[in-house]
Amino acid sequence: MQLDKKDLEKQAWEALEKSILHYKGNPVGTLAAYDVSVEALNYDQCFVRDFVSSALLFLIKDKTDIVRNFLEVTLKLQPKERQLDTCKPGRGLIPASFKVVLDQGQEYLEADFGEHAIARVTPVDSCLWWLLLLRAYIVAKKDFSLAYQPEFQEGIRLIMELCLVTRFDMYPTLLVPDGACMIDRRMGISGHPLEIQVLFYAALRAARELLICRGNEDIVEAIDHRLPLLCTHIRQHYWIDIHRLNTIYRFKSEEYGKDAVNLFNIYANSLPYDQLDKWLPKKGGYLGGNLGPSQLDSRFFSLGNLMAVISDLASVEQSQAIMTLIEERWEDLVGDMPMKISFPALENEEYRIVTGCDPKNIPWSYHNGGSWPVLMWMLVAASVKTKKIDLGKRAIEIAQARLCEDKWPEYYDGKKGRLIGKQARTYQTWTIAGFLLAKELLQNPSHLPLICF
Amino acid sequence: MQLDKKDLEKQAWEALEKSILHYKGNPVGTLAAYDVSVEALNYDQCFVRDFVSSALLFLIKDKTDIVRNFLEVTLKLQPKERQLDTCKPGRGLIPASFKVVLDQGQEYLEADFGEHAIARVTPVDSCLWWLLLLRAYIVAKKDFSLAYQPEFQEGIRLIMELCLVTRFDMYPTLLVPDGACMIDRRMGISGHPLEIQVLFYAALRAARELLICRGNEDIVEAIDHRLPLLCTHIRQHYWIDIHRLNTIYRFKSEEYGKDAVNLFNIYANSLPYDQLDKWLPKKGGYLGGNLGPSQLDSRFFSLGNLMAVISDLASVEQSQAIMTLIEERWEDLVGDMPMKISFPALENEEYRIVTGCDPKNIPWSYHNGGSWPVLMWMLVAASVKTKKIDLGKRAIEIAQARLCEDKWPEYYDGKKGRLIGKQARTYQTWTIAGFLLAKELLQNPSHLPLICF
Repeated sequence: MQLDKKDLEKQAWEALEKSILHYKGNPVGTLAAYDVSVEALNYDQCFVRDFVSSALLFLIKDKTDIVRNFLEVTLKLQPKERQLDTCKPGRGLIPASFKVVLDQGQEYLEADFGEHAIARVTPVDSCLWWLLLLRAYIVAKKDFSLAYQPEFQEGIRLIMELCLVTRFDMYPTLLVPDGACMIDRRMGISGHPLEIQVLFYAALRAARELLICRGNEDIVEAIDHRLPLLCTHIRQHYWIDIHRLNTIYRFKSEEYGKDAVNLFNIYANSLPYDQLDKWLPKKGGYLGGNLGPSQLDSRFFSLGNLMAVISDLASVEQSQAIMTLIEERWEDLVGDMPMKISFPALENEEYRIVTGCDPKNIPWSYHNGGSWPVLMWMLVAASVKTKKIDLGKRAIEIAQARLCEDKWPEYYDGKKGRLIGKQARTYQTWTIAGFLLAKELLQNPSHLPLICF
Repeated sequence: MQLDKKDLEKQAWEALEKSILHYKGNPVGTLAAYDVSVEALNYDQCFVRDFVSSALLFLIKDKTDIVRNFLEVTLKLQPKERQLDTCKPGRGLIPASFKVVLDQGQEYLEADFGEHAIARVTPVDSCLWWLLLLRAYIVAKKDFSLAYQPEFQEGIRLIMELCLVTRFDMYPTLLVPDGACMIDRRMGISGHPLEIQVLFYAALRAARELLICRGNEDIVEAIDHRLPLLCTHIRQHYWIDIHRLNTIYRFKSEEYGKDAVNLFNIYANSLPYDQLDKWLPKKGGYLGGNLGPSQLDSRFFSLGNLMAVISDLASVEQSQAIMTLIEERWEDLVGDMPMKISFPALENEEYRIVTGCDPKNIPWSYHNGGSWPVLMWMLVAASVKTKKIDLGKRAIEIAQARLCEDKWPEYYDGKKGRLIGKQARTYQTWTIAGFLLAKELLQNPSHLPLICF
């Protein structure tokens, strides 16, 4: 039995409302999942990156209080002291998640900066998403006053200092450990993964809008310097289309000195050039997944590419090419559930070596070629922005035929995305919110400025 | 025709002296190689890490001026300004190398921080080696005055600030990109490679000795805090012996929360447990090559393990176990030329995926299972320190039967190290200096405090 669209939305909203987390009587976030059939583990927490889709939806629906509360409580959890002690979270970080703990009748918040997480992964993306959400709140309210409060100015500044501090390498990108973003397990995204770079770029732009220049001259100058360098670096060195592939294919290697063309000393046979020769549409292209010494990860990662379109990190032509690629390779990238988090999956030895034999990330499952409905809102936003609205519409049509019936699972498996994820929770909040948000963005493109610049 | 030992040393000294680089009339370092038969490329430069063996030898021979000059000129090349601009080297870094350039009759020094290097790799180890060398100079002269000069105090402080600054992750180790040390090509040592961590540990200890506390209270406190954390972290989590392997082999995975035993969520089948079960001697053990989410690199890296013995990062028992392993697996790790830089080599798909198809690092060549004579001085130092002097003696005997005859090549290839490296230069300075230094350390263990604590 297929629900009609009205009932579907109603059910989704009910499920979303059930997931709202309260702290001292006020709504402060949403739980990762509201699945009563299994043990909570860490799904009873509010994850910063998960809350983004709920938050944008709440802003659209003029339920701004929960977003404001969220921004305030997470800001309070941000370490403010200079921290030369490494076993504590660094100054400026925003936690991966937090939960409400009851102790002797008193509620308090417990943050997790990765010290509880499986494999102790570092939530680098949290502070970047937090900035994007703060900006969305300001845009929704058309009022800068929250951001101009001294504690928010300090919070923004600390995030920028953490990201802009002197490090060892000389790239404009951020160096991070594996699993530092939505893909929070080992997946070969150690180093300079696209997702982090794109969120970093957007966060720099958000901070530039929100920071009061007076007193922050050094940071503002650094942002102004970094933005164009980062942008050029990503557009030039991460870009893959048939022309670029041909250039790489014919690269000389072992070039020493300032005039080197093959800057990162990529060996063409480290790329699946024969596969890409077939797979790349004439006019399509995308940003590769990672870049380092002798490394260009040619996998397609959706979040990075879609957010690059949304944030203008991709040029106008590149944005069109990314959407063309998605259109032309729809069966691979969307199939029966929007949309693949990465493509293609790592298989065989490559799976074994790159993931460290992670049984959750077997080929075409979870992060390794699985399909994540939450990505739909980004797909829709990118399609609206590039005037390819049909793609967004099609994605929603495909998803709404299944999501509610399948009880809003976190992810789907298989090459076409027809299997409910092997270990997926049901009633996953960002699946629900992502779907509703996608519909809102499609119906009313005037909401786009919440996440576009 | 075999040279007698006296002639051999004489020839080595002559070759070493030819490699000395002069700047404004003073010796300031040694060229990487003095091989007139091939184009210089970047072998006409003084590499900081390469100069270490020459420098220690010069200190032993009471030729301290060249070392002092080297320390002074490289210190001048260290960027001192706060650098929010990422395309310039960060404050505190010491270059990978420098060369003397002549322009309109004027000599000046040109530094390379990786911007000229193949694949643009970052020389993180340079600033750590520089500190170790400064300390060796102080020990040799029995006089702290050079280190107490204000510009040296500033240099030390800047290196410490660069290393101790707040970063994203919460490990006591340093996060670095691939190829940031002696292995300066992609070799799967992105993240938290052993070599960098050991040099970091030794550099922290050196800085602690050399920094004047007054005015540096914050740094000194941070060092005092970091040292035991780093030490415990490496000793616990990088250590591999048969007992530890058995623990890992039976690890539960996917543990969430503070009580997790398998902190890094290592899957046992990501390790070659069946090979290690055979290879690990009963009493031997070693520190693994890298550690991250779902990753424990079980390759043996010589520099990291030997420097861990030398610097006391390995416990007394672990140091003995490392030397026992080398003794018991002599054919694998030393064979016909001391000694393998890494063991075993990455082969087949693993080679292809992890190195990015690097033709210089094919299995059992160069960094990927090749043999590097320069490592001999560390092997000898570690064998003297652990009272396994016979191992050092045997290594020197093996090397001196070939090195001079083969014209002091940079490295050897093959499983036993009997092939002169495919692309090895001859008259490689650190091969020559490493050999002479090894002999000195063996003959006169009283020189050990130059590099021990």
